[in-house]
Amino acid sequence: MGTQDRLTAGRVFEAGGRLAVESARFTAFGWMRGTSGNLSEVVSRDPLRLAVTASGLDKGELTASDVAVVDEAGDVVPVEGVAPLTPSAEAGLHARVAALTGAGAVVHVHALNAVVAGHRWPDGVLLRDVETLKGIGRLAHDDEVIVPVIRNSQDMTELGDRFESAYDPRTPAVIVASHGLYAWGSDLTRARHVTECVEWLLAYALAVTPA
Amino acid sequence: MGTQDRLTAGRVFEAGGRLAVESARFTAFGWMRGTSGNLSEVVSRDPLRLAVTASGLDKGELTASDVAVVDEAGDVVPVEGVAPLTPSAEAGLHARVAALTGAGAVVHVHALNAVVAGHRWPDGVLLRDVETLKGIGRLAHDDEVIVPVIRNSQDMTELGDRFESAYDPRTPAVIVASHGLYAWGSDLTRARHVTECVEWLLAYALAVTPA
Amino acid sequence: MGTQDRLTAGRVFEAGGRLAVESARFTAFGWMRGTSGNLSEVVSRDPLRLAVTASGLDKGELTASDVAVVDEAGDVVPVEGVAPLTPSAEAGLHARVAALTGAGAVVHVHALNAVVAGHRWPDGVLLRDVETLKGIGRLAHDDEVIVPVIRNSQDMTELGDRFESAYDPRTPAVIVASHGLYAWGSDLTRARHVTECVEWLLAYALAVTPA
Amino acid sequence: MGTQDRLTAGRVFEAGGRLAVESARFTAFGWMRGTSGNLSEVVSRDPLRLAVTASGLDKGELTASDVAVVDEAGDVVPVEGVAPLTPSAEAGLHARVAALTGAGAVVHVHALNAVVAGHRWPDGVLLRDVETLKGIGRLAHDDEVIVPVIRNSQDMTELGDRFESAYDPRTPAVIVASHGLYAWGSDLTRARHVTECVEWLLAYALAVTPA
Repeated sequence: MGTQDRLTAGRVFEAGGRLAVESARFTAFGWMRGTSGNLSEVVSRDPLRLAVTASGLDKGELTASDVAVVDEAGDVVPVEGVAPLTPSAEAGLHARVAALTGAGAVVHVHALNAVVAGHRWPDGVLLRDVETLKGIGRLAHDDEVIVPVIRNSQDMTELGDRFESAYDPRTPAVIVASHGLYAWGSDLTRARHVTECVEWLLAYALAVTPA
Repeated sequence: MGTQDRLTAGRVFEAGGRLAVESARFTAFGWMRGTSGNLSEVVSRDPLRLAVTASGLDKGELTASDVAVVDEAGDVVPVEGVAPLTPSAEAGLHARVAALTGAGAVVHVHALNAVVAGHRWPDGVLLRDVETLKGIGRLAHDDEVIVPVIRNSQDMTELGDRFESAYDPRTPAVIVASHGLYAWGSDLTRARHVTECVEWLLAYALAVTPA
Repeated sequence: MGTQDRLTAGRVFEAGGRLAVESARFTAFGWMRGTSGNLSEVVSRDPLRLAVTASGLDKGELTASDVAVVDEAGDVVPVEGVAPLTPSAEAGLHARVAALTGAGAVVHVHALNAVVAGHRWPDGVLLRDVETLKGIGRLAHDDEVIVPVIRNSQDMTELGDRFESAYDPRTPAVIVASHGLYAWGSDLTRARHVTECVEWLLAYALAVTPA
Repeated sequence: MGTQDRLTAGRVFEAGGRLAVESARFTAFGWMRGTSGNLSEVVSRDPLRLAVTASGLDKGELTASDVAVVDEAGDVVPVEGVAPLTPSAEAGLHARVAALTGAGAVVHVHALNAVVAGHRWPDGVLLRDVETLKGIGRLAHDDEVIVPVIRNSQDMTELGDRFESAYDPRTPAVIVASHGLYAWGSDLTRARHVTECVEWLLAYALAVTPA
């Protein structure tokens, strides 16, 4: 979407509908317990605008309008016809991920295996020589993949800085220790596929590595 | 609901419908095997009245009228138009939890991880420095959370006394050892979210703590 | 059903419908992989007749007529209007269980935890002091429950003899080692509840007992 | 299907519909994360032609036409009315399996337990004396079953050669190490049943064998 395009409520709610569908799916996986986790889709690249799931709602029961629009700092941007819902507190990190990686969609879930893996390997999770790595754009052989693990924070700027320091453009995911997983892709479907594959890979790493 | 409001069957069955929905959800999670577990909603605060799931029924197949109304002692209170079903034997503890905590809804489930955690940590389960603690109203950092573990009993007064002794107003859940989990919140949705988050936290604690 | 009642196809298909529903449920639990497991309902007590799921079919896709009628030896009994499908090879054990225990329904599933528990405790699984025991008709406190484990056999008479030797009228379940679980109850719903509770109890025993 | 029969789009899409149904089922099991895995059905034996799921698609959302037709080398064969979609890169191995084993359908999934078992037992997984072996056509007693484990490769000819070397006609499955499971049967339903049983058997082997 170029700068000349005006962001419409219709465009935002289309994104909101997709975010609701994928949130319901992740909820069914047990990865969005309570009201945890949040998903976003880039609805404008220049200036950067994201549709992000609203704060405090059950992620298994979202509707297309349970969405807020934020800018590159995670602050709410008014859009005509879109109610000014409170975005997730983590919207700022979503925006940072989208800005830095060029991703079209970002997924943040509290997948148990991700938090367990982050606890076990606080300096990053090494994955290599496993076919499912192809599902996150890496090689099935002789490719050392590190899923970075960054320390948790309630300050999105601090968390964003840690993300930037740890970011490897080849790896579309990061674990926030004691917290959850961020994963991203060119669009929401791709971000979901990456999320699913990373979670599988972390489960596999935990299963085959003696404690 | 103030004392001047008369409790109607309609009000009770509205609560019963919500209890049926959430019971079906927890059954699908495997947390209400057989006919185990029970859910309640406060339908009057003064005097205290709870709608509680009826005893001996499959919790995956409840209807709005599969509910009993009990008082602060867990004894059945007649309501015109509501069949006098037998409440869960644990209704007395539900009422005690609602009275002491001010909760609007109480969930009791036989979640396996809760019973395993209670077996492993009979003096209480320590949780700290994990984001999902925010889902139960605590802090993600530097907040020592103890989920109390109390000994099981078939005597609801005895169990209620143990609950009162162990109760910390900051923690909306308690494990009954060799039995299951109680969790509560301002309404049934909140009580469900707390239940989901506590179960996740206990699973996490079990996964990252060497035996 | 007394001896004077004639067994009708309608009566058999009513049972078959219930068996299909519960088979689909257990399939969803992952307890009837491939075409494994079988369920039965007593459709006549004197003489003993059971409706049992037909052999070789996908247990997630049964219909009401995917059922055979067998006698106390597990042999097919012709019923007008009921196609002579092949009963499960294990129908003889179902009949033996129904005859000995007086159960109205018998469930046999390949639940993983049951087979793992049978491997771990070949002389029987000891359960005590856990609330879910009430779900199988035992006490939550001070009641030593042994789920018997019998050796597997392809000879239903031999297996039935082992069952009879191991049978304790107080315990409505038995593990066939290297094979699966049998559980029963007064009707099919009760047999399902017992099955669900026994599986939970075995999972719990495995989780809390150091290897 | 004899050589005289011409392969029609209708025949291909019938197979595609069945492949879509089973792919959705395996996706729900968590065995086809991202876009991983692929299923095929033989639509002509002489010459050998397989309908195989198209590459890069979400396996939980396939339609009957999300299918490609390949020959014995895994190369696309044009069929009037069938869009020339890209088959899975692994189509060549599917064809090789179908040619060598005579199977009517082949399943390839990234089932976690299969990859974990392959990591644990790189020389093959020994299974014996367990009833579920009957679900893959073997004996429940005194029958030593080895599920072969072959090394992974991106070269389908190399992978096919490894498969041929490891193949035992009595065992309808093979683990590709660090990758996933292949299983097959006379038709797609049978291939699914075999897949389900093998996965159960591998889970069982992992659960009962001390690390």
